[in-house]
Amino acid sequence: MSAEIICVGTELLLGDIVNTNVQYLAQQLASLGIPHYYQTVVGDNRDRLTEIIKIASDRASILIFTGGLGPTPDDLTTETIAATFETPLVEHPEILEDIAAKFAQRRRQMAPNNRKQALLPEKAGIIPNRSGTAPGMLWQPRPNLTILTFPGVPSEMRLMWQETAVPYLRSQGWGKQVIHSRLLKFWGIGESTLASKVSKFFDMTNPTVAPYALDGIVKLRVSARAASEVEAVELIDPVAQDLQDIAGIDYFGSDEETLAAVVGGLLRDRGETLSVAESCTGGGLGQMLTETPGSSVYFHGGIIAYSNEVKTHVLAVSQELLTQLGAVSEPVAKQMALGVQERLKTSWSLSITGIAGPGGGNDCKPVGLVYIGLAAPDRRVDIFEYRFGAERDRETIRRLSASHALDRLRRKILSGDR
Amino acid sequence: MSAEIICVGTELLLGDIVNTNVQYLAQQLASLGIPHYYQTVVGDNRDRLTEIIKIASDRASILIFTGGLGPTPDDLTTETIAATFETPLVEHPEILEDIAAKFAQRRRQMAPNNRKQALLPEKAGIIPNRSGTAPGMLWQPRPNLTILTFPGVPSEMRLMWQETAVPYLRSQGWGKQVIHSRLLKFWGIGESTLASKVSKFFDMTNPTVAPYALDGIVKLRVSARAASEVEAVELIDPVAQDLQDIAGIDYFGSDEETLAAVVGGLLRDRGETLSVAESCTGGGLGQMLTETPGSSVYFHGGIIAYSNEVKTHVLAVSQELLTQLGAVSEPVAKQMALGVQERLKTSWSLSITGIAGPGGGNDCKPVGLVYIGLAAPDRRVDIFEYRFGAERDRETIRRLSASHALDRLRRKILSGDR
Repeated sequence: MSAEIICVGTELLLGDIVNTNVQYLAQQLASLGIPHYYQTVVGDNRDRLTEIIKIASDRASILIFTGGLGPTPDDLTTETIAATFETPLVEHPEILEDIAAKFAQRRRQMAPNNRKQALLPEKAGIIPNRSGTAPGMLWQPRPNLTILTFPGVPSEMRLMWQETAVPYLRSQGWGKQVIHSRLLKFWGIGESTLASKVSKFFDMTNPTVAPYALDGIVKLRVSARAASEVEAVELIDPVAQDLQDIAGIDYFGSDEETLAAVVGGLLRDRGETLSVAESCTGGGLGQMLTETPGSSVYFHGGIIAYSNEVKTHVLAVSQELLTQLGAVSEPVAKQMALGVQERLKTSWSLSITGIAGPGGGNDCKPVGLVYIGLAAPDRRVDIFEYRFGAERDRETIRRLSASHALDRLRRKILSGDR
Repeated sequence: MSAEIICVGTELLLGDIVNTNVQYLAQQLASLGIPHYYQTVVGDNRDRLTEIIKIASDRASILIFTGGLGPTPDDLTTETIAATFETPLVEHPEILEDIAAKFAQRRRQMAPNNRKQALLPEKAGIIPNRSGTAPGMLWQPRPNLTILTFPGVPSEMRLMWQETAVPYLRSQGWGKQVIHSRLLKFWGIGESTLASKVSKFFDMTNPTVAPYALDGIVKLRVSARAASEVEAVELIDPVAQDLQDIAGIDYFGSDEETLAAVVGGLLRDRGETLSVAESCTGGGLGQMLTETPGSSVYFHGGIIAYSNEVKTHVLAVSQELLTQLGAVSEPVAKQMALGVQERLKTSWSLSITGIAGPGGGNDCKPVGLVYIGLAAPDRRVDIFEYRFGAERDRETIRRLSASHALDRLRRKILSGDR
C-alpha cells in the first residue's frame, strides 16, 4: 500500500513555477505515515497523462493529482482519469450552483467554460473547494485504488487536503503510525556554527535531528515516529529543550512562529507598543509585523520615509544631518527612530535606513550597508550597522534588514528581562 | 527525441526540500529547444530507481539525473545506472586525485567513503565538478540514449550543466531550434473570461498560446519555436499585439513587469509622485512599490495607519467619522487618501482600509471587505469597494488589496491619457 503524487501542468515542464505543491503533499503523506515512492510531473497532454495514470495505478493504491482542474481546454485531468477507467462524466448541479454563487458573490459573470468544472466521473465523490471554483474528486475506480484530485492553486489545494482528504485518509486507517516533526528556528547564528554545537544529536534515530538553512533562518528539524502525535511529542520535547538550551538566545521560536509574531507576543505580554520608520524597506517591516492577526494590539503603525522630504517633514530628521552625512547614517537612523516614537507615541520604535541596491552604492557606503535604530521606552536609542554585501540582491537585503530589526528588539526585550 | 528529468533523493519524497533543480533544468531544456514530457522523483532505492530508468529509457533519448552521487551508502545513482545497462564500474584515478586535492585544500582528510565517487560505468565520460567532490557522467549506454548525471547540490549542478552539458548538447545539434516565450499579464479579468475572449488563439501551433493564473494575476504564455531568439520574437510580436488589443486595459505588462513597476513607469514619465496610507496592508503596498529599483523618483513614502490614533493624529481623519462609521468605511478611506496626499505633498495618493481577517468581521462588514481610496492631483478622490470573501486567507486579502490599489491608479492614469 503506497501513494503516488502526479502533478499535471505544462507550466511545470517549462519551469515557469516551482512545484511547492509536491513538497506540501510529501510532508503531509509523511506525517500520516503513508509511504510514497514516486512523484511524477506531466504536461497538459491527454496521451501522456493516460500513460502515467496506467503506470502509477499499477504500482500504488492511492493516486494524488494536482493541477488540470481549471476551466480551459488545457485542463484535462478529470476527463483523462475518467477515460482511463472507461467511466462517463456526469454533471453535478450542486457544483454548478456553487460555482455560479461564487461568481455572483464577486460580482462577475460565470463563463460558459466553467460549466466543465461541474463534471466528475460517475460515482466519484466531491472534494469541495471553498475558496476557488474547481472541486476535486475522491473516487475508487476499482477495488484497492483511490484517486484524489486537487487544483494546482496552492492555497485551494491545501485547504481541500486538510478539510476532506486528511479525514478520509484517517478513516481508512492511515495516520496510526505518525511521523511528527518540530522545526526549531534560530536567528543570529550560522548553520555550520549551530551544527557543530549540536553535532552529537545528528546520530540519534528517534527522534532524528537534521539542520537546514533557508532565507537566513537556520532551522533544526526534530522528527519522531510513534503510535500517536502525543507520543511523538513526548519523544521530541526533551531533545528540543536540550537544543534550545544549547542555542540560548539565538533560538527564537518553532514551527510557524515568525520573528514578528515572537516579538509581538513579547510586546503584548508587557502591554507595550511599537512603531516603525522605514526607508529602504519601504513598508516591509510593517508588513511583516502585520502578518500576525491581532497585531493591532501592539503595532500602531509607522512612517514610510522613502524620500528625504518625508524624513525631514514628518519625522523631524535634521536637514543639516541629511546634507552632511546622507540618509544612510547612524544619526539619521537615530532621529528616524525618535521621530516616529514621538509622533506615534509608542513604547518602542524601530528605524531602518540603508542601500538596498542594485544602484546607489559607493566605496564609502556600499550596497548592503544598513543602519537599524531601536528606541527604547526611556528614549535611549541603540544603533546597529549591518553590511549585507553588495553581491546580495535587493529583496534579500530588504528582507534581512527587516528581520534583523525585529531580532534586535527581541534581544533587547529578553535581555532586559534577565 | 525528447529528454526526461529524474531526481533521486528520499529528502524529496519526505518534502524536506523544494525541488528547485527540476525547475532550473526545465527552463534550460526549454531554452535549448529540447522537448521534455516527464519529470520523476524517486527515493534512494535501488529497485525503484532501476524501474524508473527502464521506463524512462523506453520513452526518452536523453535522461538527466540529479542527486544520489554523494559518498554515502544511500547514494545509488551511478551504480544503479551501470547495473541497469549491465556495465561494470571502473575507478578513475584522475577523479580520485581531484577529490583528494579538494580535501587537502579544505585541510580535511578524505574519507574512505569518497573513493566511491571516482567510479563510473566503463566508457562513460566525466562531467567535472569544480565546486564539489562528486563528478557526473556523460554516457551513451546504447545508440540513441544519452545519460547525464549531476549532484543534487543546486550550485554544483548548475555550474556543471553550464560548463559541460550545454556545450555537449549544442554539439549534438540542440539549441539550433530555440523556444522563446513571452508572458502577457492581465489584471481585473478572470482566467475563464479572458480565455473565452481569446480562445481562437489556443489552436495555434507556432507560436502557441496558453493561459494560466497565479496569485490573482492571469497570464497568457506565447511560445515560439524558431532558429534563433530574434526569429522567435518575430513570430511572437504580432500575436502578442493581437492579444493585447483584445484584452485592452486589462493587459498591464509582460514577463518580469509588475503592476508596481508599470505604475511607477507611468508616474515617472509624467514627473508625478505618489504616497500611500495603509491600514490593513500594514506597509505591503509601500513594499510592493519599492521592490522596483529607482522607485524613489516617484514614490515619496507613506503612513502606516494601523491604529485609529495614527489615522486621526497623523492623517487627520475625523474622530467622529471613526466612531460613527468605523475605520473600514468609504469616508475614512477618502480622508486617509487626502491626509497623506496633503502631508507628503505628492501628486497622487492611495489609501487602503479593510478587514484582512481572520477575526474582526461581522455580518455588516465581513472579512475581506476593503476600501481603496485614490486621490488625484486635483484632490478629487475615487473610492472603490472590494469584497474579497471571508474564505480567503489574510495574506491573500492583503496582497489583492495592494495589487488592486495599484491597478486602480494605473487605470486612472491611462484613462486620463485618452
